[in-house]
Amino acid sequence: MYREQIKVLDCTIRDGGLINKHQFDIRFVREVYKAVSEAGVDYMEIGYKNSKEFFSPKDYGAWKFCDDEDVKKAIDGIESKTKISVMVDVGRVNLDDVKPADQSPVDVIRTATYVKDIDKAIFMCNHFADKGYETAINIMAISKDRGPELDEALHQIEKESKADVVNIVDSFGSLYQENIEHLVKRFKSIIKTKEIGFHGHNSLQLAFSNTIEAIIHNANYLDATVYGIGRGSGNCPLELLIGFLKNPKFNLRPILDLISKEFIPLREKMEWGYIIPYAIAGMLNEHPKDAIALRDSANKDNFREFYESLVD
Amino acid sequence: MYREQIKVLDCTIRDGGLINKHQFDIRFVREVYKAVSEAGVDYMEIGYKNSKEFFSPKDYGAWKFCDDEDVKKAIDGIESKTKISVMVDVGRVNLDDVKPADQSPVDVIRTATYVKDIDKAIFMCNHFADKGYETAINIMAISKDRGPELDEALHQIEKESKADVVNIVDSFGSLYQENIEHLVKRFKSIIKTKEIGFHGHNSLQLAFSNTIEAIIHNANYLDATVYGIGRGSGNCPLELLIGFLKNPKFNLRPILDLISKEFIPLREKMEWGYIIPYAIAGMLNEHPKDAIALRDSANKDNFREFYESLVD
Repeated sequence: MYREQIKVLDCTIRDGGLINKHQFDIRFVREVYKAVSEAGVDYMEIGYKNSKEFFSPKDYGAWKFCDDEDVKKAIDGIESKTKISVMVDVGRVNLDDVKPADQSPVDVIRTATYVKDIDKAIFMCNHFADKGYETAINIMAISKDRGPELDEALHQIEKESKADVVNIVDSFGSLYQENIEHLVKRFKSIIKTKEIGFHGHNSLQLAFSNTIEAIIHNANYLDATVYGIGRGSGNCPLELLIGFLKNPKFNLRPILDLISKEFIPLREKMEWGYIIPYAIAGMLNEHPKDAIALRDSANKDNFREFYESLVD
Repeated sequence: MYREQIKVLDCTIRDGGLINKHQFDIRFVREVYKAVSEAGVDYMEIGYKNSKEFFSPKDYGAWKFCDDEDVKKAIDGIESKTKISVMVDVGRVNLDDVKPADQSPVDVIRTATYVKDIDKAIFMCNHFADKGYETAINIMAISKDRGPELDEALHQIEKESKADVVNIVDSFGSLYQENIEHLVKRFKSIIKTKEIGFHGHNSLQLAFSNTIEAIIHNANYLDATVYGIGRGSGNCPLELLIGFLKNPKFNLRPILDLISKEFIPLREKMEWGYIIPYAIAGMLNEHPKDAIALRDSANKDNFREFYESLVD
């Protein structure tokens, strides 16, 4: 599937960091940046830009805040064309902390929002655009929010926002290919001046196939993570996506090395992937938080009881 | 996706047995039969009916041969509407060993074949049909065999065979949804008097999504295995398929219990699932045998070298 406009964003550190409170050490982050750079990945999302008013650095690692100095340490001296992205959540960032783009190692700021907060997200997104960043708006939990208010939000984004990209985020990992076709077509019918992107979760082993479906219907911005790392079931595996895209700019080899050297040992210490409680949450279109809590308990493999707690 | 005609075939013991030479003990097989029966699964494929001329019972377990007496021991006393299926490979069964259906605990015989052996497969299939069995022809390695000889084979099956079902088998796990749409439509354009089925492999995490795609295009016979067990990357997970199908005859709970009690511990001893060398083989449309050999070697996590051995 070769289409020149397709861009791949690796969010290994940002989404994977949701498992370990963003406490990856600098060596690991540099190894990921080296590999995705060598692989020709377009963007690497290195974390969240949260304000320290809302989260304590005692509890969270550097990639929860993405201070420019920490980002510089992670990328310094590594030859790369890969742009650096950070994510912000509505209401969790102090806008004054964000320097103009030409004074920052960060290239892209993506604002994550629910449909109900779209006004705030557009305001923030435009603020970042005015400071010189590439911008995106990520609409989360879309499987719960497909009523007419979604169309209204999309019209507002199209008219009022300076976002370059609007991302469909399947937060609950509950969508399958017919839903993706419907959503991408719906987004494209309203959003005419911006690109459409897709971020999947792998609860039902559908993140990669949903990403392919988004590509088929002309979404050009695609999120993925190395070895599918990410909270709960994880994300679309970057290695599968690169293997599928026929764009000669991509090189699978450095990602394979990275998995061998870093991610096989890491998976022994951190849990993500095809795990039944996450699949159950995905089937039932529920947030994975209850499944995550279950996996931290003595009951972690009592799948039937967990299922019954959600359906009864 | 509720469609009354849809039938689910569990092939846990048959395909999972390719990992351990079909040496599951009788207690385990009975637990699987109990759970799939309680879950409302239509068929359970319990193994291969190979002749002992070709494989030694010293090396292989009972489910490589499926003697009627062993099958009876596996199902005896368990209340069930689930029909029992066995698979035969062209050239590996002695037809005289197969008793008439009314003297056997087996209900269905599926003949697995490559396109090139279609004449033999039709002969065998008709022999079993004449003995009173439900029958299917499974066309393997279809990702390598999509030329005009496939159409010819399909015309021959339609005209000459007594098969009830013709199954598309993605042996290399290398197909994605556009391929499945194409194949199911192609099969249905020629095969008018039989049902179409699909058997996926999960090398690229696409077995479940490809099964959904087959359903969308009106394939009605669907293979799956508990917790996705199967050679290499495994198969479409039965629990995901049952969760997706809205047919009220299915009950997910006994499968969840079975995974908790039997398959979580089993997975510690037997390997299947998302494992990079199988993904690489899938990407490159190659038989998983080299990947299986790699996983048995000291080099099992040297993914880059394995990739290069296949592409260079």
